[in-house]
Amino acid sequence: MSLPKESFPLVGIIMGSQSDWDVMSHTVNFLVELNIPHEVKIVSAHRTPDRLREYSVSAATRGIKVIIAGAGGAAHLPGMTAAWTHLPVLGVPMQTHALNGKDSLLSIVQMPAGIPVGTLAIGKAGAINAAILATSILSLSDIEIEQRLMQWRNQQTESVGLEPV
Amino acid sequence: MSLPKESFPLVGIIMGSQSDWDVMSHTVNFLVELNIPHEVKIVSAHRTPDRLREYSVSAATRGIKVIIAGAGGAAHLPGMTAAWTHLPVLGVPMQTHALNGKDSLLSIVQMPAGIPVGTLAIGKAGAINAAILATSILSLSDIEIEQRLMQWRNQQTESVGLEPV
Amino acid sequence: MSLPKESFPLVGIIMGSQSDWDVMSHTVNFLVELNIPHEVKIVSAHRTPDRLREYSVSAATRGIKVIIAGAGGAAHLPGMTAAWTHLPVLGVPMQTHALNGKDSLLSIVQMPAGIPVGTLAIGKAGAINAAILATSILSLSDIEIEQRLMQWRNQQTESVGLEPV
Amino acid sequence: MSLPKESFPLVGIIMGSQSDWDVMSHTVNFLVELNIPHEVKIVSAHRTPDRLREYSVSAATRGIKVIIAGAGGAAHLPGMTAAWTHLPVLGVPMQTHALNGKDSLLSIVQMPAGIPVGTLAIGKAGAINAAILATSILSLSDIEIEQRLMQWRNQQTESVGLEPV
Amino acid sequence: MSLPKESFPLVGIIMGSQSDWDVMSHTVNFLVELNIPHEVKIVSAHRTPDRLREYSVSAATRGIKVIIAGAGGAAHLPGMTAAWTHLPVLGVPMQTHALNGKDSLLSIVQMPAGIPVGTLAIGKAGAINAAILATSILSLSDIEIEQRLMQWRNQQTESVGLEPV
Amino acid sequence: MSLPKESFPLVGIIMGSQSDWDVMSHTVNFLVELNIPHEVKIVSAHRTPDRLREYSVSAATRGIKVIIAGAGGAAHLPGMTAAWTHLPVLGVPMQTHALNGKDSLLSIVQMPAGIPVGTLAIGKAGAINAAILATSILSLSDIEIEQRLMQWRNQQTESVGLEPV
Amino acid sequence: MSLPKESFPLVGIIMGSQSDWDVMSHTVNFLVELNIPHEVKIVSAHRTPDRLREYSVSAATRGIKVIIAGAGGAAHLPGMTAAWTHLPVLGVPMQTHALNGKDSLLSIVQMPAGIPVGTLAIGKAGAINAAILATSILSLSDIEIEQRLMQWRNQQTESVGLEPV
Amino acid sequence: MSLPKESFPLVGIIMGSQSDWDVMSHTVNFLVELNIPHEVKIVSAHRTPDRLREYSVSAATRGIKVIIAGAGGAAHLPGMTAAWTHLPVLGVPMQTHALNGKDSLLSIVQMPAGIPVGTLAIGKAGAINAAILATSILSLSDIEIEQRLMQWRNQQTESVGLEPV
Repeated sequence: MSLPKESFPLVGIIMGSQSDWDVMSHTVNFLVELNIPHEVKIVSAHRTPDRLREYSVSAATRGIKVIIAGAGGAAHLPGMTAAWTHLPVLGVPMQTHALNGKDSLLSIVQMPAGIPVGTLAIGKAGAINAAILATSILSLSDIEIEQRLMQWRNQQTESVGLEPV
Repeated sequence: MSLPKESFPLVGIIMGSQSDWDVMSHTVNFLVELNIPHEVKIVSAHRTPDRLREYSVSAATRGIKVIIAGAGGAAHLPGMTAAWTHLPVLGVPMQTHALNGKDSLLSIVQMPAGIPVGTLAIGKAGAINAAILATSILSLSDIEIEQRLMQWRNQQTESVGLEPV
Repeated sequence: MSLPKESFPLVGIIMGSQSDWDVMSHTVNFLVELNIPHEVKIVSAHRTPDRLREYSVSAATRGIKVIIAGAGGAAHLPGMTAAWTHLPVLGVPMQTHALNGKDSLLSIVQMPAGIPVGTLAIGKAGAINAAILATSILSLSDIEIEQRLMQWRNQQTESVGLEPV
Repeated sequence: MSLPKESFPLVGIIMGSQSDWDVMSHTVNFLVELNIPHEVKIVSAHRTPDRLREYSVSAATRGIKVIIAGAGGAAHLPGMTAAWTHLPVLGVPMQTHALNGKDSLLSIVQMPAGIPVGTLAIGKAGAINAAILATSILSLSDIEIEQRLMQWRNQQTESVGLEPV
Repeated sequence: MSLPKESFPLVGIIMGSQSDWDVMSHTVNFLVELNIPHEVKIVSAHRTPDRLREYSVSAATRGIKVIIAGAGGAAHLPGMTAAWTHLPVLGVPMQTHALNGKDSLLSIVQMPAGIPVGTLAIGKAGAINAAILATSILSLSDIEIEQRLMQWRNQQTESVGLEPV
Repeated sequence: MSLPKESFPLVGIIMGSQSDWDVMSHTVNFLVELNIPHEVKIVSAHRTPDRLREYSVSAATRGIKVIIAGAGGAAHLPGMTAAWTHLPVLGVPMQTHALNGKDSLLSIVQMPAGIPVGTLAIGKAGAINAAILATSILSLSDIEIEQRLMQWRNQQTESVGLEPV
Repeated sequence: MSLPKESFPLVGIIMGSQSDWDVMSHTVNFLVELNIPHEVKIVSAHRTPDRLREYSVSAATRGIKVIIAGAGGAAHLPGMTAAWTHLPVLGVPMQTHALNGKDSLLSIVQMPAGIPVGTLAIGKAGAINAAILATSILSLSDIEIEQRLMQWRNQQTESVGLEPV
Repeated sequence: MSLPKESFPLVGIIMGSQSDWDVMSHTVNFLVELNIPHEVKIVSAHRTPDRLREYSVSAATRGIKVIIAGAGGAAHLPGMTAAWTHLPVLGVPMQTHALNGKDSLLSIVQMPAGIPVGTLAIGKAGAINAAILATSILSLSDIEIEQRLMQWRNQQTESVGLEPV
């Protein structure tokens, strides 16, 4: 990643295991493209619950503004992160082997009243959209980021061909 | 609602039909409790598509920061709102008669890459959590709102009894 | 396509993205086979919502009789098209990576009362059947098309072998 | 029904059993409201297969333009009707006791290539929308019906309130 | 097949299309192995409804005792066969591309009261088991078939190894 | 039940618990109506596995021709009965509280190759149809039962009204 | 509860909220009946994550042998408990309003390799069975508990009536 | 397997067929790694029900402490094992061809009140976790096993990398 070292990360991207990186790298790619400072960590809700607690509790004071958490199966990472921080938490359900990510989706989106997780689509589309939504949130207080986002969206609209080839 | 007339709305709450109000009023209740300026409209993606376009296109310039859209069945309202604005859009799937909101959930969450909707749980829990997540987003640039949110979350934690009665 | 330039299209085929063309080309193939004038466009509900609005609003005055819309995931294209036109709209759910088109199907078929989409099967069978149903609709006011359709159906019946080989 | 006896039915409404009438009466109500000549029959695919065959085979010659078939569970009525006629067939999945109409929906919509059924939503919304879609189809060759449909749709749009009450 | 020409078929195996043969050949293989006279036909409920009617209506008088029908998607073949005969009808749901045979299963098993279809598992296991169940039914009035069936089942039990290898 | 004591039961009806009786009594009602000798037992696969084994192993020698087993949830009764007898076994999935009988259906129908269960619809319709299918099986070797069945089916066809009331 | 104060709890029962008590009281009832020392706490994974951590980390040293956790929706309680203890953890999925407990079931059972939760059925049956399974685990090292369990199971078998009434 | 012959098995691993071995070998691998005496057998609920009965009834007296049963489809093995023993039974749902193991999961987990099966995740993760949960149960009365388990879990936690590579 080409971000200068002195830029403090605004978006924290965490994932349950190394195997989620293929999908979650799409989140990073978008943030790099729009030049949004970020950090990437592996935090397993089940295998490293204390790391999860530490990460979530300290995120706000470290300057993180939005947390994006990708997880699969009984995907507890986004919800438990949200339990320990009042920052906005976005969840990306991984596609899973047996149930295709339906388990991940329900484990992330069906949070009880009180602790929200903004959930995106299963897999790659969700990983990209989490980055866009995080950028959209940061845009509310940073006009430069907002302009980059609006420009990106205009380019996206213009890139849609008129007829299939 | 007890908000002073001069406060411009920061959160726009829209819903597909009058019948969604029973659920979406929980969104409003939370925002009233935390004193977040907001507005409430009925906007039907299918019956009033031009109203939807107008609402979405003008929201940012009117000062709206976050849009919360509740819809059921083939729930196109959140996704189409997101198509016309770069503001963060949160979606609340209504519980439906035949399919219990599974149709609403998939219609809202499974957005293609490029246009995100942060999706909450089906029904009342989702309606409350959309308000909390919107507040959490506003907190990033308003320390008073942040303090009210943190206080609310602390009270929530303290209100959990130790044993069932 | 071998249609003479002077024939105005009766069927408008739209799809959410280039990636839907593999499936939607089956719609076109049938219409070519039965010599039904048609046009094919990419119209993304989410990335080009204004193009969608324009296409839908103008279709009837341009002489289009039936619109066939193919879309996947949170498939809003058919329903939003139907929101802007009183022409019959037929929807073809694309098979999707994670949920196999179940999301597309529910997003298309579960329209609220007031704005109908005639929905076909997921994937290739649905794409072919949308073309047949459109032809069937056109048959009601064009006896030549009707005869071509009846002939095609008779041939289909006769082509079914008596025993597996 | 207030239709004059001399008007030949343009829309044939059939349903699998008396118990479907509660839902399918909504189809009839819309057609009455827009003054579309129609007929209503009970035709059970399973208990009266010969009646089904006779109805389907003769419909076109009797002047029927569109057939709307409502059925539940292993809902074979719409598909078998379509097997015996080249007229457009619209299917309305009944909500069922155990599986809420998911069985009806899949049995109707997942037709193989060659024999289409334009499928509407499960239950009452689908029953109303089948009537609207049939009217939309008839509009293509009857400008008076078209005007009544466009007027009805305008009224529908105007009837959507601005705020929930 | 090695059956002598003079043996009249006791089991009629029908399938919706040539593409079902890969699965339904397992039905035939079992009947060949147990020397049960049978016949195999392609009968499409949707493309050849009259052939289906004829086959079902005449089966009993032609000496058929059990009908096994394999079909996929909106699988109407078993249920419509049962509508025209009082013979026992067994249904085999084909695994389908998009919905993996869940559509086939529900379309076959969820028959309304009055017209039963004895449904087997999705795919190959169901195809084999339909043959075994048909044999079991024939066993009730043919002691030789019964003995062959019991012998086959004993061999099956004995063939189960004690430990995995 | 009005059956003379000297008639040996041909159909054995078993169910997993007393709570299944409301549904399974519909099986009995049909057999009583068509005067088919039968017996009714509670046999729990899980709480009385030895009773299940004994019942299944002895059924054929006691003269039972067909076994109908109703069970819900992890519904092992039909499949385990089939494991211990070569008689035809028909399964009726009970509608369950949480999953509406979807669990019962899959637990009964998805038997592995080698041990078939002819599965009927979930709940009351399935209970009635199991009785009809059993009667249909008995008809193959008893012309009086066959005539009663054909007469019942004719009456059923005639009882279908022409128009809804 | 009638347990003497000096008996240290062997089974820890926790639940996500007061609303789970209706179901989880069945767990307690069984343990009371078999005289198994236990304790009952409300521990919300999302609203009181630190209480959850503390409870899980300290359970083994406090003499708890088995933990039973009931939770609904995005049910993270059982899995997060298992993340912080090597004691056996049993999970009871609550039936939920919109998705009937399917979300709870998948959120609990689909744990990744490394951190197991022994999952029981949705709702009341699961709550009872968690108590039985916990008792069964305790039986392995306590012959008195084993005898009470075996006696209870014998009584259960004997209580199954022979015929429905 | 490198276990000395004189160690009596504490864990009994059974599976429905040879084809389950690919998955269930992961259970064995973990037990070998932690040096837990065990045995492995093929026991088919449907093809060898008497072997199943014998195995289950005799397990406790042979010194087995925990039984792990893997099965797919209409997966009756774990539940029927639990019907014949008061030992803790853990179930592993196999991933299946058509329904991806959803059938296996529901057939295993939805046991009625009275006979519990502690159910793990579908497929490989479940197979590993069944071994860990069995080890956890054995830990309660064997401090050496407990220490090996705690050490294994610590190593697992330490093995989680900080960042994806």
